[in-house]
Amino acid sequence: MKNVPYKLYLPEDKLPDAWYNLRADMPEQPGPMLHPGTGEALPAEALKGMFVGTLAEQELDETNRYISIPGGVMDYYKTFRPSPLCRAYHLEKALDTPAKIYYKFEGNNTSGSHKLNSAVAQVYYAKEQGLSALTTETGAGQWGTALSMACAYFGLDLYVYMVKVSSQQKPYRMSVMRTYGAEVIPSPSGTTEIGKKILDENPETGGSLGCAISEALERAAKTENCRYVLGSVLNYVLLHQSMIGLEARAAMEILGEYPDIVIGCAGGGSNLGGLIGPYMRDKLTGKANPRIVAVEPMSCPSLTRGRYAYDFADTGMTTPLIPMYTLGSGYIPHPNHAGGLRFHGMSPILSKLYNQGHMEARSVGQRPVFEAAQLFCKYESILPAPESSHAIRAAIDEALLCRESGEAKTILFGLSGTGYFDMTAYSSYLDNSMSDYRPSDEDLEKSFATLPQI
Amino acid sequence: MKNVPYKLYLPEDKLPDAWYNLRADMPEQPGPMLHPGTGEALPAEALKGMFVGTLAEQELDETNRYISIPGGVMDYYKTFRPSPLCRAYHLEKALDTPAKIYYKFEGNNTSGSHKLNSAVAQVYYAKEQGLSALTTETGAGQWGTALSMACAYFGLDLYVYMVKVSSQQKPYRMSVMRTYGAEVIPSPSGTTEIGKKILDENPETGGSLGCAISEALERAAKTENCRYVLGSVLNYVLLHQSMIGLEARAAMEILGEYPDIVIGCAGGGSNLGGLIGPYMRDKLTGKANPRIVAVEPMSCPSLTRGRYAYDFADTGMTTPLIPMYTLGSGYIPHPNHAGGLRFHGMSPILSKLYNQGHMEARSVGQRPVFEAAQLFCKYESILPAPESSHAIRAAIDEALLCRESGEAKTILFGLSGTGYFDMTAYSSYLDNSMSDYRPSDEDLEKSFATLPQI
Repeated sequence: MKNVPYKLYLPEDKLPDAWYNLRADMPEQPGPMLHPGTGEALPAEALKGMFVGTLAEQELDETNRYISIPGGVMDYYKTFRPSPLCRAYHLEKALDTPAKIYYKFEGNNTSGSHKLNSAVAQVYYAKEQGLSALTTETGAGQWGTALSMACAYFGLDLYVYMVKVSSQQKPYRMSVMRTYGAEVIPSPSGTTEIGKKILDENPETGGSLGCAISEALERAAKTENCRYVLGSVLNYVLLHQSMIGLEARAAMEILGEYPDIVIGCAGGGSNLGGLIGPYMRDKLTGKANPRIVAVEPMSCPSLTRGRYAYDFADTGMTTPLIPMYTLGSGYIPHPNHAGGLRFHGMSPILSKLYNQGHMEARSVGQRPVFEAAQLFCKYESILPAPESSHAIRAAIDEALLCRESGEAKTILFGLSGTGYFDMTAYSSYLDNSMSDYRPSDEDLEKSFATLPQI
Repeated sequence: MKNVPYKLYLPEDKLPDAWYNLRADMPEQPGPMLHPGTGEALPAEALKGMFVGTLAEQELDETNRYISIPGGVMDYYKTFRPSPLCRAYHLEKALDTPAKIYYKFEGNNTSGSHKLNSAVAQVYYAKEQGLSALTTETGAGQWGTALSMACAYFGLDLYVYMVKVSSQQKPYRMSVMRTYGAEVIPSPSGTTEIGKKILDENPETGGSLGCAISEALERAAKTENCRYVLGSVLNYVLLHQSMIGLEARAAMEILGEYPDIVIGCAGGGSNLGGLIGPYMRDKLTGKANPRIVAVEPMSCPSLTRGRYAYDFADTGMTTPLIPMYTLGSGYIPHPNHAGGLRFHGMSPILSKLYNQGHMEARSVGQRPVFEAAQLFCKYESILPAPESSHAIRAAIDEALLCRESGEAKTILFGLSGTGYFDMTAYSSYLDNSMSDYRPSDEDLEKSFATLPQI
């Protein structure tokens, strides 16, 4: 094994030039999207009406293993990629573990997370198709920021519907998006019929992600040359995010290393799916057998306590049905839950792989997560996003098991982003006003009742 | 010339292993610090009582050209260094300029700026000396954050006196420092005699940097095993910051490039001094003759409109006197001035070099600076700090001159940090509530009147 630097950046000419499409190696495909009214599989043409054309094709593609990254996407990728593969020497020493801990750090860009990987691709294809505007919703703001950055560069208009209460709590996130030229609309708003209706009924509402999605969809439908785009869950998002795993695997190969365990946090699945892609391929093709671990919040446990079923992607129950582990589209995490990873479901690709026993999942409480985050930033200098800190928690736990067993395992985890805009959550941890919330079985039964009957 | 990547990271084993001490090559030394009462040069022993011992030695060192970076400092440097040398391909294209624009990006760490380079060194030496605590003041919060990170890693206590109005405007900055274990005290506070006195006289005051410095000094004097440290202006700070220029020069050498113009923003001088070090050496030793340009805000024009004189470093007029370009220690930038670069003086090293004609200086208005920042983030993806955007403005202006003249000059500027915690300033730019303020000659005459008579 070679001398391992603290951070390894692939040379620019060694960047992957194609995304990896995990479905080409899956023994069984996730089911198709279904029309919520008829229960019929949505044909390609229907998807093309909803999504940017090339993205709809990518969404359905089960056969092409590698898909070339267009030059225009690469040109922007190179402003923030490669992201570094880092060796957590200081953390290892602090934990007194024989384990080797690596992490792939996706937070070194202004969006603060991996979301930019897919945003760039989506806006590129939208522009190629001749679209002039996009709409989306954002909660915490990472996806909205990433999309703003890409739209600024490619010259498309962007309307971001931001959950009103988030826009009030995170005015700086709004300013970042505005600096990149996006129009940020606190939702519910008077710019859509659904927004007006909700405001009429409840003028004081702080909004919800479900409402913001509905407004963004309506705005896209009413705006010429415009589409609604989203940043997680879908197959094409995981495709773009495969950059994370491809770079990680290439960098570790240079070092003569291969992980025994690959760990990622999981909300809608974009980060986890991107990180594990090439490793899952090794597993599915019998080339290697790393453990693959999804980490989710105890307060939103779609994989560990959800049902594998067809469900809506939005709380408004307007989207096509997708096959996934879900808590029911009516599930709302406890108000004490900080940060992201609050989606009720999970990427269909990851759901199928989990269902077939190709990966593990665990859930962790919020306070142990922030405890891990604080330890991490002390020794590794980076202040991690609450989401990413779920993976840190699991990586530390695995490293501590190695200390007990004396095994020198190689651990790779995904550090999907930084927490610079999540300091409210950190403050509540520091002030001891944060709790660990675990929904009761009764809570989950209630939200499972929102599952569609098909 | 080789193929130039968007970002070039030096390999870890090519990181500079010694800081460069610019004074060893200066034809004339800046004058010594003077005792404000007697006007006598402060002897080494006096400095050692005020500063960490090794730092006092470095402050006085005029002869050692290179000073080895201790292993303990390098171990932490490697968690965030090297910083990338970036080629602004997209910006060049947008400007339609034949100029080649490079920037050295120091914002890829949680402190968000170059300040961490010196913080790590200062805390390392403090620990080596057996100190157990440090105090400092912070305005915008970058220095306080950097010092918190270093103190967390090396295990020293830290008390940060943060201007009260800043702590209220930037609660997130406070939370970041607290996450790293620092105690952040809004100043004025009841923890010091001077703080109590000010609060008694004016309970509603929002505080000032001068008051925060006084409180930090008092706290250090009253705390066992404790010193006050600061992050700019001083010679030893420029020494540690030489990492910026050393890395930039080494990276450009790999590319077969050498800058015709080196541009940096200048407040107290830590960023500019660090960036230009090796290039100034080339200039002073006749090896090359790059133009070196300091860019300062029109609202705080110490180099372009200040006097070269002995002055206090603090508004409280309690520090030793230092020889520098200054607007007078009583100078306070207009309230409309956003971001940092608000120090009334300038590093003695840079002041001497400027006085002797080895570098240029210019001042720029605030709105053109934010206009440049917005253009930059659109094309180069990074949202820059307002401070750093002064250098961007000058780099763009030089590139536009090249467009007129047809010259393909090579421009290098320092992108000292990111603006993620400065969104209030961006908002006021976006909302058109920002103005360009230029102090009148009468304003400056008034503040020159605060210069000590020695």
